[in-house]
Amino acid sequence: MRPKLTDVAKKAGVSPTTVSRVINNYGYLSKQTKNKVYQAMKELNYQPNSLARSLQGKRTNLVGVIIPSIDNPFFAELVANIEKKLFEKNYKMILCNANYNKNKEQEYLRMLIANQVDGIITGTHNLDIAEYDKVGLPIISFDRTLSDQIPIVSCDNYQGGQLATNELYNAGCRHIAFLGNPYSISNPTNERLQAYQDTISKLGLKSYIHTVKFSESAALKTASVRQLLEQHTIDGIFCSDDLTALLVLQEAKKEKIDIPHQLKVIGFDGTKLIQTYYPELSTIVQPIAEIAELLTDLLYQKIEKEDLTFKINHFKLPVKILRNETTL
Amino acid sequence: MRPKLTDVAKKAGVSPTTVSRVINNYGYLSKQTKNKVYQAMKELNYQPNSLARSLQGKRTNLVGVIIPSIDNPFFAELVANIEKKLFEKNYKMILCNANYNKNKEQEYLRMLIANQVDGIITGTHNLDIAEYDKVGLPIISFDRTLSDQIPIVSCDNYQGGQLATNELYNAGCRHIAFLGNPYSISNPTNERLQAYQDTISKLGLKSYIHTVKFSESAALKTASVRQLLEQHTIDGIFCSDDLTALLVLQEAKKEKIDIPHQLKVIGFDGTKLIQTYYPELSTIVQPIAEIAELLTDLLYQKIEKEDLTFKINHFKLPVKILRNETTL
Repeated sequence: MRPKLTDVAKKAGVSPTTVSRVINNYGYLSKQTKNKVYQAMKELNYQPNSLARSLQGKRTNLVGVIIPSIDNPFFAELVANIEKKLFEKNYKMILCNANYNKNKEQEYLRMLIANQVDGIITGTHNLDIAEYDKVGLPIISFDRTLSDQIPIVSCDNYQGGQLATNELYNAGCRHIAFLGNPYSISNPTNERLQAYQDTISKLGLKSYIHTVKFSESAALKTASVRQLLEQHTIDGIFCSDDLTALLVLQEAKKEKIDIPHQLKVIGFDGTKLIQTYYPELSTIVQPIAEIAELLTDLLYQKIEKEDLTFKINHFKLPVKILRNETTL
Repeated sequence: MRPKLTDVAKKAGVSPTTVSRVINNYGYLSKQTKNKVYQAMKELNYQPNSLARSLQGKRTNLVGVIIPSIDNPFFAELVANIEKKLFEKNYKMILCNANYNKNKEQEYLRMLIANQVDGIITGTHNLDIAEYDKVGLPIISFDRTLSDQIPIVSCDNYQGGQLATNELYNAGCRHIAFLGNPYSISNPTNERLQAYQDTISKLGLKSYIHTVKFSESAALKTASVRQLLEQHTIDGIFCSDDLTALLVLQEAKKEKIDIPHQLKVIGFDGTKLIQTYYPELSTIVQPIAEIAELLTDLLYQKIEKEDLTFKINHFKLPVKILRNETTL
C-alpha cells in the first residue's frame, strides 16, 4: 500500500496539517519541522497523492458556507466555530448569507461552483432538493434535509423538545404552549415541535401550538407573542429559539406578568451570547462547537474522497438543558 | 474619451451591475435586458476595458474581510451589511475571523494574497503597519489606522463620546464614569474616551476612567464592572460598547442598584440585535449600513483603479443617540 499523508505525519511526529503545510510551503514552520517532514517523506518514499490536485492548482482550499443570516447569534456562533475548524485545516470560508431568499441562494450556489470551491456547508433550505443534487460538489448540510445523498448534521432536536417540555412540566406548568417555527418538510427542527406534542400527549395535557416563522421580523413575532399571552390559560412556553423567548420575556414584562411565578419560559439554542448576556433564560443548549467540528470533518472526508458514503446519513448530537430563573 | 461601463449602463437604462452581469454572463437576466445592453455596447462601440482583467481570469471577485470576531453582534451586523453590498456587485466574501490573534491575522493575510483576492476590508489591528503596507492589494480599513496609504471608514467616535457624556449629564448625573477600551495607538475608537474626557472637563466634573479591554472575556469584564460599582460615588456610566453596558445592567440588578434612579447607563454601537432584544438600553447608534456601503464602495473604486488616492483619508459618518429607559 502506498504511504499516505497521515503516515508521513506519524513518522515525522507532527500533525497531518503540518505535513500539508510543508508540502504546500504554507504558514509558519521552523526549519527543524520542515526537515523532519522531508526526512519522513523520503524514508517512506511518499508522493503527495491526495494533495496532487492542490499542487496542480485544482484545489482552491475554499469552502462555501451558506446560512440564512449571520446577524442571528446562533449562526454567528456556528460560523465562528466552522471558521476556526476550517482555518486549522488550511481552508478559507466564503460566507454566503442567503437571507431566506431563494434567488440569492441559487446565485450563491452558482458563484460557488464557478469559483470552484472544494465543498459546501449549507444551513439553508430555500431551494428544491434537485438544485443541490445538481451541484456536483461535496456538500454537508446543517439541520436541513436536502437530498438522500447529502449527510445532515444537527443537534438531537427531538431530545431537546422533550427536555424542554418536561422541564416546564416539572416546574409545575400544566398549560404548556409551543411557540415557534411551524412544520415544514425537510427541516429536522420540526422534531422540536414533534417532541413537544408527543410529550404533552404522554403527560395527558392539552397542546397549545402557536406558530411563527423563524424568518419573520421581530415586530411580527412580538405581535404573535402578545396574542399568545392574551390566552390567560398558558403557564409555560417552550420557544423553538432563544430570540423568540427573549421577546416573550419582554412582552411579559410589559404586561406585568411575573416570570417565573405566573409564567415559565424556556428557549432553544443556548449560544454563548445568550448565556452571557441573558443569564436568566432557561434553554436547550446545542453543542455548537461539536456541530461545527463534525460538519467540517465530514466535508473534509468528502473532499478527500468524493465517492465516500457514510453509514448513517443523519448525525444527531446530544443537547443539554440549562436551567435558569425563567423556569424556577 | 473611450466609453465606460457606466456609459453603457446609462444608455441601456440599467444599473452598472447589470451590464457587468451581461458581460460576464452571470446571474438572472431577461433576454430583453441582455439585448438592451448589447445594443448599447454596440452603439457606443464599448470594449469591456475595466472588466478585461476579470474576463481574462485575473479577477477572482473575492474580497477578504478580516474582523476580530464574528460572534460579536456588532461585527456580525457589519459583516451582514458588507456581504449584502458585495453580493450586489457580484463579489464574494472570504470571512477571516482574526480573534485578536496576531499570528492568525498574519496567516490570513498570506492566504488572501495567495488566493488572489481582489481586495481586503479589515477591522483588526493586531499587526504592525508594515505588514499591511507589504500586501500590495487594495485595502480599506474599518475603524483602524493601518497606514497613511490605507483609507479609514468609521463612525464619528468623538461625536458619539460627546453625545453619550452629555446625555448622562442632562439626565442629572454628576459623577460620570467611562468604562471600556483603554487608549491604544491606531485605534480611532480612542476618540470615544477623548470626547468623554473633554466633555467632563468642559462640564467641570471629575473624570472616572475605568478601562477594560474590548477583547477581554465577559467574566473579567464582569469583575471589572463590579469593582466600578463598588465606587458608590458613580451615578452614570458611559460604556464604550453595548455588551459591556449589558454587563453593567446585570451587575446592577444583582447589587439591587436601581436603574435609572440610582445609576444611569449608556452604551455604544446600537446594533439591531441590541435595539430589538435589549430595548431598555440607551446607546449611541453607529450607522452600520452606511459604513458597510462606504467600505465596499471605496474598495470597489480602489480595485477598479489601483493608484487611486482619495482626498481625505479618514471618512467619519455621523452617529445618533437612542434614548431609552437606562438614561431616563
